[in-house]
Amino acid sequence: MDTHPCKRPRILLHDPTLRDGHHAVGHQLDVGQLRAYATAANAAKVPVVEVGHGNGLGASSLQIGRARLDDATMLTTVREALTSSRMGVFMAPGWGTSHDLVAAVHHGADVVRIAAHCTEADVTERHLGVVRDLGAEAQGVLLMSHMTGPGHLAEQCALMAAFGAQAVGIMDSAGHFLPADVTERVRAIADAVDVPVIFHGHNNLGLAVANSLAAVDAGASVIDATARGFGAGAGNTQVEVLVAVLERRGIETGIGLREVLAAADIATDRLMKAPPSIDSIAVASGLAGVFSGFKRPVQQIARAEGVDPVDLLLALGERQVVAGQEDLIGDVARELKAAIR
Amino acid sequence: MDTHPCKRPRILLHDPTLRDGHHAVGHQLDVGQLRAYATAANAAKVPVVEVGHGNGLGASSLQIGRARLDDATMLTTVREALTSSRMGVFMAPGWGTSHDLVAAVHHGADVVRIAAHCTEADVTERHLGVVRDLGAEAQGVLLMSHMTGPGHLAEQCALMAAFGAQAVGIMDSAGHFLPADVTERVRAIADAVDVPVIFHGHNNLGLAVANSLAAVDAGASVIDATARGFGAGAGNTQVEVLVAVLERRGIETGIGLREVLAAADIATDRLMKAPPSIDSIAVASGLAGVFSGFKRPVQQIARAEGVDPVDLLLALGERQVVAGQEDLIGDVARELKAAIR
Repeated sequence: MDTHPCKRPRILLHDPTLRDGHHAVGHQLDVGQLRAYATAANAAKVPVVEVGHGNGLGASSLQIGRARLDDATMLTTVREALTSSRMGVFMAPGWGTSHDLVAAVHHGADVVRIAAHCTEADVTERHLGVVRDLGAEAQGVLLMSHMTGPGHLAEQCALMAAFGAQAVGIMDSAGHFLPADVTERVRAIADAVDVPVIFHGHNNLGLAVANSLAAVDAGASVIDATARGFGAGAGNTQVEVLVAVLERRGIETGIGLREVLAAADIATDRLMKAPPSIDSIAVASGLAGVFSGFKRPVQQIARAEGVDPVDLLLALGERQVVAGQEDLIGDVARELKAAIR
Repeated sequence: MDTHPCKRPRILLHDPTLRDGHHAVGHQLDVGQLRAYATAANAAKVPVVEVGHGNGLGASSLQIGRARLDDATMLTTVREALTSSRMGVFMAPGWGTSHDLVAAVHHGADVVRIAAHCTEADVTERHLGVVRDLGAEAQGVLLMSHMTGPGHLAEQCALMAAFGAQAVGIMDSAGHFLPADVTERVRAIADAVDVPVIFHGHNNLGLAVANSLAAVDAGASVIDATARGFGAGAGNTQVEVLVAVLERRGIETGIGLREVLAAADIATDRLMKAPPSIDSIAVASGLAGVFSGFKRPVQQIARAEGVDPVDLLLALGERQVVAGQEDLIGDVARELKAAIR
């Protein structure tokens, strides 16, 4: 393994275990669980520990799912546990407000991600400005980034950088990308902006680690990954695996392997019923290009309406549904049911 | 997706769910389980369904682990369930004999894999000859193929082809490869032989699907994959995921997606306690380059001796242990324990 420092580009791993993982447990993590994992991630020198409702600041609701804890409690709990890691938060369009951003920074958020659908970067301008004014690090990410091409994603990322984002990038919200898709998109973005490029993968097609490697090789320097892959649907890029693979590649992350393995063991024991796996519904949602967060409602509604969840996901994919349109799941399920009769 | 027939190279998926998966359940699958999965795989038009003790024909023993069923019962059960799929068996060095090969073909094995450690292809000559004489398809595979380089693997594969193997290739027994490792090895082998090239991956570093894609792109045409990844350690390449990914790539497998998803659901419900996941021990064994089949004994012995299983695996990796040397695990564990004192 090459250990020559000059040849070891530094990759920053951003860990949304306590935010994206919330999708896997109906947003029900408690104070003890947040404290246990944040303490372990801090001990492993994970650079950024992101926390919150799965859909981000202000998203706790009947429609999306109520979190067990309010944002303030989540943030203060994790803040207390972090001595070296920075704390991150995520805000997605529609749910969070400037008020939530002010409160999050007040509660100690160091890194604030403002998300937008892949074609709607213009909606991030005001909130990115608010974050900059608050003195926190502002980042901009594009959701469902498989729904448009490299050139358009690069334009949208350049727009967010112009709005003041200090890092910009894409989320493979549906776990739909193959490595070549990531390479061309990340390369186009890296060519278009002067700030670090972010990649956030999901494992629906078993490619989260490979897609993250492709992103690094194409110029991304901020990679999202979670303990044991704890996250929506088939889960995210598995952080302890990515640390091992980057170490094999001679790429420094600053994270100790044993410590990150220990943190992953704590996450497995304390946070999840079972580690994420790629079930048939996850494969179908990855293929269909449907947001991984739809998994649980799709399973529930398919069962209730007596339709095949794979058929339901493929139909939702044809509708090009995005997060926030969960109310469409029932309608599409009933249409399928009617069509079967 | 490109559907032009001329542009759709055909990849043959070889499914060792009922053989490699045995490692995950102490070789305890029963007749009902074999029948249920073989029937589902046959319905999904999986080309080859491989069955047997995890370590292959003749391997059932106190040291390696006794299978619930004898080879004859496993083979006749699966044979009865297959109407279109061919039946495969695996024989690894040291355990099986020519007698086992004769019996396996008598019980209906169509495809017989003769395995050897990556540097010992010469031991396959007699058994490959026996298989050819019996009129079954003879294949040669190299185990622990990360332990030597592309040139040497190509030589060894060419030797097996000269011995009469009708397909040859490599197994990433430890789940150690990165995609670039697979690309250079498979390309070297494909350049050296005129028969189809086989790749068999494990998911310890989360790269089984990506490594299988790399193998296909480098010229492999026989790819091993199992239902929900059921297999040793972190599991194998997940067959239903690979079918979906190859379909995205416009590469025909002849397998129906819905049918293979249904087979994977049956495997999940009937064969396994839980789907394979990449736990800390799996990451360590992948990094250390230790055979995935060591996972369970390493966990048991580490617990018994009170040593860290990650330390134990890394120490076994330094010893370059291979399958069949399970008796070394205890010795190395006791050495570690003594060193700690």
